[in-house]
Amino acid sequence: MGFEFDDAVAVEPAGEARFRTTITDRWNIGNAPNGGYLVAVVLSAIRASVAKPDPVAVSSHFLSRTEPGPAEVEVEVLREGGHSSAVARMHQDGLTRLHLAATYGDLGAAAGPTTVLEPTPVFAPPEECVRAEGPVAPEFSKRFDLRLTPETAVWATVRPSGTPEMAGWVRLADGREPDTAMLPLVADAFPPTLLNLMPTGWVPTIEFTVHVRGRPAPGWLQCRFRSRYLIDGYVEEDGEVWDSAGRLVALSRQLARVRG
Amino acid sequence: MGFEFDDAVAVEPAGEARFRTTITDRWNIGNAPNGGYLVAVVLSAIRASVAKPDPVAVSSHFLSRTEPGPAEVEVEVLREGGHSSAVARMHQDGLTRLHLAATYGDLGAAAGPTTVLEPTPVFAPPEECVRAEGPVAPEFSKRFDLRLTPETAVWATVRPSGTPEMAGWVRLADGREPDTAMLPLVADAFPPTLLNLMPTGWVPTIEFTVHVRGRPAPGWLQCRFRSRYLIDGYVEEDGEVWDSAGRLVALSRQLARVRG
Repeated sequence: MGFEFDDAVAVEPAGEARFRTTITDRWNIGNAPNGGYLVAVVLSAIRASVAKPDPVAVSSHFLSRTEPGPAEVEVEVLREGGHSSAVARMHQDGLTRLHLAATYGDLGAAAGPTTVLEPTPVFAPPEECVRAEGPVAPEFSKRFDLRLTPETAVWATVRPSGTPEMAGWVRLADGREPDTAMLPLVADAFPPTLLNLMPTGWVPTIEFTVHVRGRPAPGWLQCRFRSRYLIDGYVEEDGEVWDSAGRLVALSRQLARVRG
Repeated sequence: MGFEFDDAVAVEPAGEARFRTTITDRWNIGNAPNGGYLVAVVLSAIRASVAKPDPVAVSSHFLSRTEPGPAEVEVEVLREGGHSSAVARMHQDGLTRLHLAATYGDLGAAAGPTTVLEPTPVFAPPEECVRAEGPVAPEFSKRFDLRLTPETAVWATVRPSGTPEMAGWVRLADGREPDTAMLPLVADAFPPTLLNLMPTGWVPTIEFTVHVRGRPAPGWLQCRFRSRYLIDGYVEEDGEVWDSAGRLVALSRQLARVRG
């Protein structure tokens, strides 16, 4: 047995550009597998198909609700070169659950100018943050050590803060260190920002994009998710992920739909 | 003859789920067609194929450089329902130039909670802004009335401001009013934010996502584009587009690569 993330996203070849996998219920939010986990599964199949190692840009469109159980992933490589690009779909019971387009690169070899214009935010240290183990996600919560800053944990401890933001620290519970393959999962692992604005049920994701900007150092990841525009039930959630050295390693954005 | 945007993005059916089009050089930046224009062409073919009218989430991966001339667009509809989802590719000379995934909805019928947490920024009015007709994009510039705020126009008039931001007003030069089909073009129509940081040549886009959040009112669009993280030559450009009533109508993000 390896680490549980690697077991959960494993795929096995099942013919030309096809892979078989099993979606476990261990990464469920309520009754449905977390979207970031599903993206990580599809990326496993793409990674096995392309030359470059790091998913620099990943665009996912969620089409229908995935169920725990067997699934197939179909990959098509569109080009190889300075970057590798591929598209993939996850199928279950003849239905497409998820369509994903990804461009891979080699962040270990990337060279070019660097200018960072925003300082890494300073959060209370993990030991002063709050483990938020919501009753909605008992299985998913066990996979992580996830601690919200006191300011953003108030939706669970007191009442919504009025500012749709979640921030804090995260690492995998079994000690597996972060890498570029697991950053898309982390970018979907925090509670929805809207919980700090209003009581809300399931907020299904329509589209989810992650730009992986660096290979993370070992240790805690520091994350912040914010929303600015909830319009007619559509809301964006913008995420930033920094590694333990304080370097930005991912930017994410998702568009989700609040059920009326 | 209609408006030039509509002529430029027109596609004609060429068999089952296939469309023919001609990429003109009138929307060129240097020798290459603008990416937002290419996205708008592909969206024309998707719009002709799906039930819902508004492109609420559009993810584009740029694979190889499009040339002015004939092109084919192949569309596959993945689902119809509350939203329509489709993928499409643009081909030229047997090569895939662009892969696009889009989820369409009906923003005229969208109902749900609305909370806007960020005020619409106040820019100098269009008559106090600066027409930036760079020598790099003489053709593209003619398609728009595009005016940069004095603060962000300094890259052209004085020297880079040091803050990688572009902001200002835009409308199509021939008076065609904005709609949800042209917002992805607008989200790629301003000069690269990096021009306010450093002299730079072509900044090719790897991935470009637009979330259309509302149907724009007639008149000027107000736009702001910002970058925070230039890391090893990769940079994101985050955009916001408001209509003449001050309502947010699109959020965009692209990941681009600065040539070393």
